[in-house]
Amino acid sequence: MKSKLNIVKIGGNIINDEGALTSFLKDFSALKGYKILVHGGGKKATELASLMGLKPKMINGRRITDAANLDVVTMVYAGLLNKKITAQLQKNNCNAMGLSGVDANCILAHKRTVKDIDYGFAGDVDEVNSEFINVLLQNNVTPVFCAITHDKNGQLLNTNADTIASEIAVAMSKLFNVRLNYIFELKGVLESIEDKNSVIKHINLEKYKQLIKEGVISEGMLPKLHNCFNALEKGVQKVKMGDASLVKNESNLYTTLSL
Amino acid sequence: MKSKLNIVKIGGNIINDEGALTSFLKDFSALKGYKILVHGGGKKATELASLMGLKPKMINGRRITDAANLDVVTMVYAGLLNKKITAQLQKNNCNAMGLSGVDANCILAHKRTVKDIDYGFAGDVDEVNSEFINVLLQNNVTPVFCAITHDKNGQLLNTNADTIASEIAVAMSKLFNVRLNYIFELKGVLESIEDKNSVIKHINLEKYKQLIKEGVISEGMLPKLHNCFNALEKGVQKVKMGDASLVKNESNLYTTLSL
Repeated sequence: MKSKLNIVKIGGNIINDEGALTSFLKDFSALKGYKILVHGGGKKATELASLMGLKPKMINGRRITDAANLDVVTMVYAGLLNKKITAQLQKNNCNAMGLSGVDANCILAHKRTVKDIDYGFAGDVDEVNSEFINVLLQNNVTPVFCAITHDKNGQLLNTNADTIASEIAVAMSKLFNVRLNYIFELKGVLESIEDKNSVIKHINLEKYKQLIKEGVISEGMLPKLHNCFNALEKGVQKVKMGDASLVKNESNLYTTLSL
Repeated sequence: MKSKLNIVKIGGNIINDEGALTSFLKDFSALKGYKILVHGGGKKATELASLMGLKPKMINGRRITDAANLDVVTMVYAGLLNKKITAQLQKNNCNAMGLSGVDANCILAHKRTVKDIDYGFAGDVDEVNSEFINVLLQNNVTPVFCAITHDKNGQLLNTNADTIASEIAVAMSKLFNVRLNYIFELKGVLESIEDKNSVIKHINLEKYKQLIKEGVISEGMLPKLHNCFNALEKGVQKVKMGDASLVKNESNLYTTLSL
């Protein structure tokens, strides 16, 4: 039987709040068994870019990563945030190792193909080095991934952290029973956006299709859920979505997704 | 018999020159056998600090690392430089992995004790995790260390890159025949500072003491050599000092140090 592997993804709502981050990292450290953390960015990169006199480049509401902004996210995600998070986990006796996709070629990507919009140095994932990530896990290491990847041709690429988590989860599901945990600002997928406690506790593929038909799922949630069901179809065992209490054993308000 | 391990340290003179860095990384990638790269900082951190409106803090000519400057060096050394170097090595088919001392607790340090001067978040090395670094080497990984360490209590620390190289070399010499290579702006230790080609090809402990007595060794070179002989006395097999051509097989103008 395969061992269990927990993959937890956190984003800006935790990273931007020092107290919330410290508290989450304690709970994450206490999780037993194999685990991987994936973190997104947060407001620090925007702040640094602004200090450096860079203006955010947007096309049709989408952020464009030019060379100067790529340097900023590499500094903030792979440098400051990744190492601060890793240092705190080490303090909590979790043997964390900060990683980007370039390190030991863990995540290979390619620059997003230009169709209508040139997103600049945005990377779409091609391959995750599950074999080497497993070597780390077997050596009692907890990988901590930021969302920077590379193209094996010397180019770093800015990649969506949700996608990184999902791609790692799919790749590792060859070797482990993978549980993918998305932590975000809500307690889960909501029945009604007005009621923050109206969490739908379980969604399977059939219910997912039904909820879409009924128009229950909000615009912002659709790509997340699409991503999750894609991961489940490719071998991930279970997906949970909720707020930071999700990593605590006592929490029971979150959404579980399965096929 | 122990296997050979090459540890190469590069500093600002290469890092600040894109062409020199690209060329060096090609030569480094071509080096056969086990190897580790250690890199220093360069002018980028000073540039970023200045862009952010931070003034360099100096006491008695020594740079002080306050919290804001620690963030800057963490971003530049552990983020931008470390990942750019690693991406170039990956392009050259060298399976590099960027690391700081915090990652998998590779280099444990403590905040430098305040005597006359409070250096701020400057770290002095306590222990190198040679066992785990060996796991990486045995898995065909080439570690690339920046000079950021931690204290296992959540604090990142700025550490001298020459010292990092030397401490890793000493720790790894339990497992390998270690050759430590310091690459800097000169072709080696010079007989006369005016003649850049007056390289002293070999210095043993006896000659070292004699050169000090004769006042041949320049002020700036003394701590470097002291550091090197210290490493040799603690088990490192050989130290070479010279410019970037040192990593090319055909180079023969450099200084070799041995006991």
